[in-house]
Amino acid sequence: MAPAVPALPVRRDLRAAPFLRAARGERPSRIPVWFMRQAGRSLPEYRALRAGHDMLAACLTPDLACEITLQPVRRHGVDAAILFSDIVVPLYAAGVGVRIVPGTGPVVAEPIRTLDDVERLPPLHPEQVAPVTETVGLLLRELGETPLIGFAGAPFTLASYLVEGGPSRNHERTKALMYSAPDVWHALMARLADLTGTFLQAQVAAGVDAVQLFDSWAGALSERDYREYVLPHSTRVLRGLDGPGVPRIHFGVGTGELLAAMAEAGADVVGVDWRVPLDEAARRTGGTHPLQGNLDPAVLFADRASVEAQARRIADEGRSAPGHVFNLGHGVLPETDPDVLTRLVELVHTLRP
Amino acid sequence: MAPAVPALPVRRDLRAAPFLRAARGERPSRIPVWFMRQAGRSLPEYRALRAGHDMLAACLTPDLACEITLQPVRRHGVDAAILFSDIVVPLYAAGVGVRIVPGTGPVVAEPIRTLDDVERLPPLHPEQVAPVTETVGLLLRELGETPLIGFAGAPFTLASYLVEGGPSRNHERTKALMYSAPDVWHALMARLADLTGTFLQAQVAAGVDAVQLFDSWAGALSERDYREYVLPHSTRVLRGLDGPGVPRIHFGVGTGELLAAMAEAGADVVGVDWRVPLDEAARRTGGTHPLQGNLDPAVLFADRASVEAQARRIADEGRSAPGHVFNLGHGVLPETDPDVLTRLVELVHTLRP
Repeated sequence: MAPAVPALPVRRDLRAAPFLRAARGERPSRIPVWFMRQAGRSLPEYRALRAGHDMLAACLTPDLACEITLQPVRRHGVDAAILFSDIVVPLYAAGVGVRIVPGTGPVVAEPIRTLDDVERLPPLHPEQVAPVTETVGLLLRELGETPLIGFAGAPFTLASYLVEGGPSRNHERTKALMYSAPDVWHALMARLADLTGTFLQAQVAAGVDAVQLFDSWAGALSERDYREYVLPHSTRVLRGLDGPGVPRIHFGVGTGELLAAMAEAGADVVGVDWRVPLDEAARRTGGTHPLQGNLDPAVLFADRASVEAQARRIADEGRSAPGHVFNLGHGVLPETDPDVLTRLVELVHTLRP
Repeated sequence: MAPAVPALPVRRDLRAAPFLRAARGERPSRIPVWFMRQAGRSLPEYRALRAGHDMLAACLTPDLACEITLQPVRRHGVDAAILFSDIVVPLYAAGVGVRIVPGTGPVVAEPIRTLDDVERLPPLHPEQVAPVTETVGLLLRELGETPLIGFAGAPFTLASYLVEGGPSRNHERTKALMYSAPDVWHALMARLADLTGTFLQAQVAAGVDAVQLFDSWAGALSERDYREYVLPHSTRVLRGLDGPGVPRIHFGVGTGELLAAMAEAGADVVGVDWRVPLDEAARRTGGTHPLQGNLDPAVLFADRASVEAQARRIADEGRSAPGHVFNLGHGVLPETDPDVLTRLVELVHTLRP
């Protein structure tokens, strides 16, 4: 057996990949399509593989995370893989006491409420996410011509988990901190921007072809508050990736009011949920940004004709933007029939870009 | 003891009531203020009164519902009372198998999925909500110069509970029915419009001074879908109240994209959550509708200076509309400190209308 040598990133020529062409604002040969949460509970092969494995353990076990990432690529023929991960992975890797409780979500052992709490938040060192970068290395060898998207949660969403201590519907403690103690708030967000930036830079160094910065909860904010309390920090994360030149997707749910601000944050591609049609989203983002989205994941529960009609409409409206990556307006719902997703990929590939 | 005679509605002269003047698009002597869910879990006297009483039983026990409705009027000095009720009250009263499970919400025994299911949905007869109209009668005698707002859930929100069988985050079964079987959908919505209309008309006949039609989940829809699948039915409910001339408030959460459509439904006053500032909401509704809202209920967890700054900003922006009823952008959160609400009422009453 040959001695183990560190694997160099696999070099792939993906210049013609439809996903990357659309993300750069070019017109690819076909409309690229992938699905948020394509790797996950809708797939029986995922449920089989995850059985007995904790979520965070699965994210941090390279063989397992690699296989889970590949499953939807094999099954559906999507135009991009997205690294199987969870929003709290970099917090956990940095040593924050957080675990994912099935049926609840991330639970934080010691919520952050004061400047002292913020100052105890450990920084992330790239070597702490070695299992993730190793997963990226495995994936690059397996993916052939399919681009790989890296992934991280945005500072506001991480802040909400840390301040609330878990998932929150109303984010009242988070917002109270934001309004009442802006110095503490900005100190927290600055640390989280560092952490998220380090995590994404490590993924890019390991070879991902694009990144998605997901701000799950940003839609809970007005544009005014988003611009004051969130935008500077998300901007620092995204601008920190100016050098490598990988496309940066920025997405949140219920962010119709925030699309222009999220584009300004340094997104190359703006993700759009299902509430705002893509032609209107193109207007709101100045017509300068490729868009990703915006099929309502609930539509996948309707009959085949409805799915097709909506996909065609979205493809039409997507031509208002300089590039369109077909996707859902939010993650695949757990009870989605995976065959519906496979058929949708086939359909989108027949539509005129 | 005198023989019981049916009580006639109490006649009150409320022409000068700030809430009603603002709701009619006039400039009252002060900015009127009330809070969605002002009667509820934030008040210790409510928690004491509700102990041992099921939610639906409390809504349908006139003495209890009357007292619960009055509690926040006494404590906070708000400019309107809102009838203590629940969205599923008219369904329950009509004989639909529904109960409210603490910690979960309404649970429907036999979800509605087919035309047969729709046809088995019983109509509501006004006498079935006699406990509610009796509560109104009691309240009119107690409220003095404070107007009373009637309340009902809108057809889409009721449909979601009936189709999903309970609260749903993604409304996938509801939307699947809407897209896949529009005939069944519209039949269901027509029945629910009848039921909601009957319920509100009974409240108006009993003497409420205004009504609020609350479409909790409408914000889950794009404007296109709202206009096709929901607007005609909400319009029928609201237009059915053209005669009595009581102000009709129409509100939903996350409805920034829908404000114009909700105004067109026949709302006199459009409710606005915290995501869209009132000056922008005035533009979206054509500048013709008084507005209600839009303080983020989470702001009430911040320090006093932040609450005051936001209240002043909202009062300023509210002058863009022909009338402004100060309110939250969603219901009072259960852990809100009631003293914060009382102080907020005092503050709003000092602000220039």
